[in-house]
Amino acid sequence: MSIQIGIIGSTGYTGSELVRILKNHPEAEIAVITSESHAGERFSDIHSHFQGIEEQVLVRAEEINPDALDVVFLALPHGVSMSYARQFRDADFKIVDLSGDFRLTSPDVYETWYNKSHVFPEGFERAVYGLPELFREDIRKADLVANPGCYPTSAILGVAPLLAAGLIDPGNIIVDAKSGVTGAGVKAKPTTHYSNVSDNFKAYGLKNHRHTIEIQEKLTALGNNGTSVQFTPHLLPVDRGILSTIYTTPVGKVTEEQVRAAYEDHYGDEPFIRLRNTPPSIKEVRGSNYCDLFVTYDDRTNRIITLSVIDNLVKGAAGQAVHNMNLMLGLEERTGFVAVPLSP
Amino acid sequence: MSIQIGIIGSTGYTGSELVRILKNHPEAEIAVITSESHAGERFSDIHSHFQGIEEQVLVRAEEINPDALDVVFLALPHGVSMSYARQFRDADFKIVDLSGDFRLTSPDVYETWYNKSHVFPEGFERAVYGLPELFREDIRKADLVANPGCYPTSAILGVAPLLAAGLIDPGNIIVDAKSGVTGAGVKAKPTTHYSNVSDNFKAYGLKNHRHTIEIQEKLTALGNNGTSVQFTPHLLPVDRGILSTIYTTPVGKVTEEQVRAAYEDHYGDEPFIRLRNTPPSIKEVRGSNYCDLFVTYDDRTNRIITLSVIDNLVKGAAGQAVHNMNLMLGLEERTGFVAVPLSP
Amino acid sequence: MSIQIGIIGSTGYTGSELVRILKNHPEAEIAVITSESHAGERFSDIHSHFQGIEEQVLVRAEEINPDALDVVFLALPHGVSMSYARQFRDADFKIVDLSGDFRLTSPDVYETWYNKSHVFPEGFERAVYGLPELFREDIRKADLVANPGCYPTSAILGVAPLLAAGLIDPGNIIVDAKSGVTGAGVKAKPTTHYSNVSDNFKAYGLKNHRHTIEIQEKLTALGNNGTSVQFTPHLLPVDRGILSTIYTTPVGKVTEEQVRAAYEDHYGDEPFIRLRNTPPSIKEVRGSNYCDLFVTYDDRTNRIITLSVIDNLVKGAAGQAVHNMNLMLGLEERTGFVAVPLSP
Amino acid sequence: MSIQIGIIGSTGYTGSELVRILKNHPEAEIAVITSESHAGERFSDIHSHFQGIEEQVLVRAEEINPDALDVVFLALPHGVSMSYARQFRDADFKIVDLSGDFRLTSPDVYETWYNKSHVFPEGFERAVYGLPELFREDIRKADLVANPGCYPTSAILGVAPLLAAGLIDPGNIIVDAKSGVTGAGVKAKPTTHYSNVSDNFKAYGLKNHRHTIEIQEKLTALGNNGTSVQFTPHLLPVDRGILSTIYTTPVGKVTEEQVRAAYEDHYGDEPFIRLRNTPPSIKEVRGSNYCDLFVTYDDRTNRIITLSVIDNLVKGAAGQAVHNMNLMLGLEERTGFVAVPLSP
Repeated sequence: MSIQIGIIGSTGYTGSELVRILKNHPEAEIAVITSESHAGERFSDIHSHFQGIEEQVLVRAEEINPDALDVVFLALPHGVSMSYARQFRDADFKIVDLSGDFRLTSPDVYETWYNKSHVFPEGFERAVYGLPELFREDIRKADLVANPGCYPTSAILGVAPLLAAGLIDPGNIIVDAKSGVTGAGVKAKPTTHYSNVSDNFKAYGLKNHRHTIEIQEKLTALGNNGTSVQFTPHLLPVDRGILSTIYTTPVGKVTEEQVRAAYEDHYGDEPFIRLRNTPPSIKEVRGSNYCDLFVTYDDRTNRIITLSVIDNLVKGAAGQAVHNMNLMLGLEERTGFVAVPLSP
Repeated sequence: MSIQIGIIGSTGYTGSELVRILKNHPEAEIAVITSESHAGERFSDIHSHFQGIEEQVLVRAEEINPDALDVVFLALPHGVSMSYARQFRDADFKIVDLSGDFRLTSPDVYETWYNKSHVFPEGFERAVYGLPELFREDIRKADLVANPGCYPTSAILGVAPLLAAGLIDPGNIIVDAKSGVTGAGVKAKPTTHYSNVSDNFKAYGLKNHRHTIEIQEKLTALGNNGTSVQFTPHLLPVDRGILSTIYTTPVGKVTEEQVRAAYEDHYGDEPFIRLRNTPPSIKEVRGSNYCDLFVTYDDRTNRIITLSVIDNLVKGAAGQAVHNMNLMLGLEERTGFVAVPLSP
Repeated sequence: MSIQIGIIGSTGYTGSELVRILKNHPEAEIAVITSESHAGERFSDIHSHFQGIEEQVLVRAEEINPDALDVVFLALPHGVSMSYARQFRDADFKIVDLSGDFRLTSPDVYETWYNKSHVFPEGFERAVYGLPELFREDIRKADLVANPGCYPTSAILGVAPLLAAGLIDPGNIIVDAKSGVTGAGVKAKPTTHYSNVSDNFKAYGLKNHRHTIEIQEKLTALGNNGTSVQFTPHLLPVDRGILSTIYTTPVGKVTEEQVRAAYEDHYGDEPFIRLRNTPPSIKEVRGSNYCDLFVTYDDRTNRIITLSVIDNLVKGAAGQAVHNMNLMLGLEERTGFVAVPLSP
Repeated sequence: MSIQIGIIGSTGYTGSELVRILKNHPEAEIAVITSESHAGERFSDIHSHFQGIEEQVLVRAEEINPDALDVVFLALPHGVSMSYARQFRDADFKIVDLSGDFRLTSPDVYETWYNKSHVFPEGFERAVYGLPELFREDIRKADLVANPGCYPTSAILGVAPLLAAGLIDPGNIIVDAKSGVTGAGVKAKPTTHYSNVSDNFKAYGLKNHRHTIEIQEKLTALGNNGTSVQFTPHLLPVDRGILSTIYTTPVGKVTEEQVRAAYEDHYGDEPFIRLRNTPPSIKEVRGSNYCDLFVTYDDRTNRIITLSVIDNLVKGAAGQAVHNMNLMLGLEERTGFVAVPLSP
């Protein structure tokens, strides 16, 4: 019998992408999709490209039957997710939470950076950070996975090999990141108005974007006290995709070969990591779960530059969530994923 | 054993899309890919998003072993395809030609509109026009399928139900079509320079675009003498997608309901046709093989307006080609296609 | 002394464009700018690209001193403008209304198409339709100018020469129009969300868009009873620009030369009309007050095709408004306009 | 009498932009425009948006009459410009060279970074680097101005106040820059194909882009030995605009206020510098000669972040060239420039 899936929250892009990916997953059946604001409407009424494909009627979350589900995805804003995680704390199903509610190390840190008190502090002990390349074994055993943020996925995968190999100064990491507009969500607001985005480009969230602490904590968790991350996000006039340009400083003498070897050793046969010989572009991963990485060493300036590219809605959200589900259920990791990015 | 596929010509978008779709096809194996200009290079050297996915080395067409192949796709420019069709005339494999070389009714018409003499006139008798919704049974039995042009796919599917039901004047059909840039091909030229396309829009090929005759001939083949089509293509600042706005005039009194019923009757359960209740947009079919249709009747002006939307690289090229292959080989028609368009 | 200008309403694109153009006008001084919702803020707070250029503080409309003004622009939504026109009915200044409130022939027609009752019916008698190429002399003498809609500007300028020359059937006019997103206004809503517009294209307002009646009435005013216009707008993924593809049918035998001559005769030395020998694109008029026109006759189908291109915010709104002001005040018509469109 | 202008080279974007700006310049008359490849054609044949505006016939450079000119702009590729500079070495007119041929300190450095020998080494002594904000007085007296590169304009204006105030370590400057496509030139090539740019983003030229040395030399010229610049350019899916995100490290204790004051002191009343209180976007300067700057200090990481935004074709090329001309001729610096950027 198929894996029975519940998706809590469905009006945003992560909900839509979860359904897109899961419709292609041979073991999965989307049993129920919820929406508080659109209950009674069809999923295809909200996301019109699903007409004829996924037309089930949305229900309120309170109407779902927890006993009939194997996996639940929380595709909700931060601050909302935690209530459902608490409500489902004794349920038998696995939970993948796509919000920021359980990504950090403690309720205190959460409350500082998210400016909100947490209703389910115990969740922090149960939650595993769902970055398979770093925490695969923990994810396999987890009941609650905190799916990483889009920027942190890109940044952490870009820096981890260098830290793990002890090649760089953890106190001097700069992540200059550029993201497509879907990262700002489905809601219409001035910052997502076409004419404010198209033929335009800007930086935002300087110094205090919430993903800063997520990146910093996870890199510290690799055993690097004194980790300090400068994170600057920018808004690209594209729908999907993040490219992070990462500047780090070697602690001793390094060579181009050493630096590249660190990535090869670290990622080996990872199914969704592609080490590139030339700088990758975001369209080369569009619609896919790949993280494309490129690294080089500049001996003139004694700096390492890493480029890390993902589709923020897939590897940075729904795709990574399905990858985590595959791990939690013991399925082959690639199950359900199309092989080829959509380009152009 | 898998179906053994050969792809002749691979540097363009249709070659790239064929590989993208076929990598997801559970019965297909891409045995060989050719390129005259890039023989010796890997497929992923030309189309970098295939790194780690399809890295086979390209060979010259003369090096392929015809006996080892079940299906050959000709992903070549018009004028080049016909030579291969002639060369392979006695081969045992099925051929799907994605060029314009065998779409018209005769070498004479071809030579008039393509301004080029034809080297394989006999091919016109063997070739079946590969629009499954209209010519499904012929395609099943064909050895050589002429895969339709992108604009004609959109236009013919939009008009056919009205002509078949005898509702409109065949002598008064206007197709105002808008296409993404990939329709102009992979080659860098002033018309595809980013700064000539972005934030821009223009008409081209007024009165004499080659797809005019393709549309007109196929609509005439539905039994409508006197068919006359005004076809005006435009270039959209998008990668993929065609939207045709079609204006026709009823021959007698019609109602909105009658007009809609004509489409429902004509297409019934077609796997790749979606009748829409609201005007469709091109992003709603992106990356998919769907043709989305909307029709309405304006009693103030006594005109019928039909909107027809496809992804020009999929339903308008490589996707339709794989659909044709499925039909020729007796496979379930949807085999290999992802269910959900990529939006946004 | 400079011409003293008041701009009523300033948060939208027409307000912003008026200021952009008028800052370059050697005779004009922007004396006052109003906003009900942002009174007390600077103009540059709302439109940040004006920092250091136009930083005057916005006031409420009731605070303006009518006696100090020579010209007032109403840059307001329809339904709001008419109240101000009524309030200012006895003022000494000239008024250019950029809304749709006085464009139609009567309050009755207005109420039918705008679904709203009109508070200042007498305004219809005083208002002159501000399309200089057709109504120049009336505009010179007017106190209240109804500045044309963006689509109607493009459509009427494209059709008028053919009707004026008696070359076409007035009952069979099709205007297939494509507009940039700024036509939908500055307000954030799902239809203006970047990810719903970018890499996308769709038709909307089929059969009953309000500009239909505006086009039809003004073409009828050229003396053509029985005028019937089919108008279909589409949304382009561009900021600015409208391209209308216009299909008409000759009443008798015509030639390409005759058709072109009709345009040359009709427009002669118009300062903002450019007759083109090849199809124009919208970027070629970006930021300028030009309307670029191209016409051709298809003897295969016996149809005339006209392409008409404008910048919807300039010739389709604020630029035409300043042109009207120049006429009303007896200034040289080009005063204040930059010569060269911004391309690319 | 007007200033008589010659433009050598006219098929590229800088040639087109020079004409756009100079057509609005009240003192300038474009006496002659040359093109070796398009001599005999009209300027408007090459740049169609100039139809009806600038239709003079292009001539070969050898046909110009040097005695009739006051200023000559060299709008040519590097490697070509230097021959003309040599040829005109004794001419009476002023020269503004928009190429990279005279921007560096010596022929040796040029040959190292441009991989080409220089035919007019003496030009280096005569040439003044045309960044008015730094070298205004020298420009006033110059006969030959080397107009700065687009990236260097953005980078140098962003860093100079911090170096001049002695606030930062000159050996630790990172410029992460993002540019629109027009920076890659008018020529059609794979990197400028719409479908390789749209919905895409990538880094290029890591470690060794030619603008690196230009930035580094000019910052060193401010008296900072040991200056070391890490420069990473990226390609944005926009036509125009550069945004540089600049990371520097204070040498001692600094505050946000000190850092901002450094910019205010350094730029004072500069006509084309706008200090912003919030991060600027590239559309806010589109079509204008402004450089918008924003700076902030992050006390968590002890880093200064500067954002520097220009239109690469205006402040980064043709606009700065006209600014230089105004200085060389003693005109008011703003002459010819429109006040307001085109947004949206």
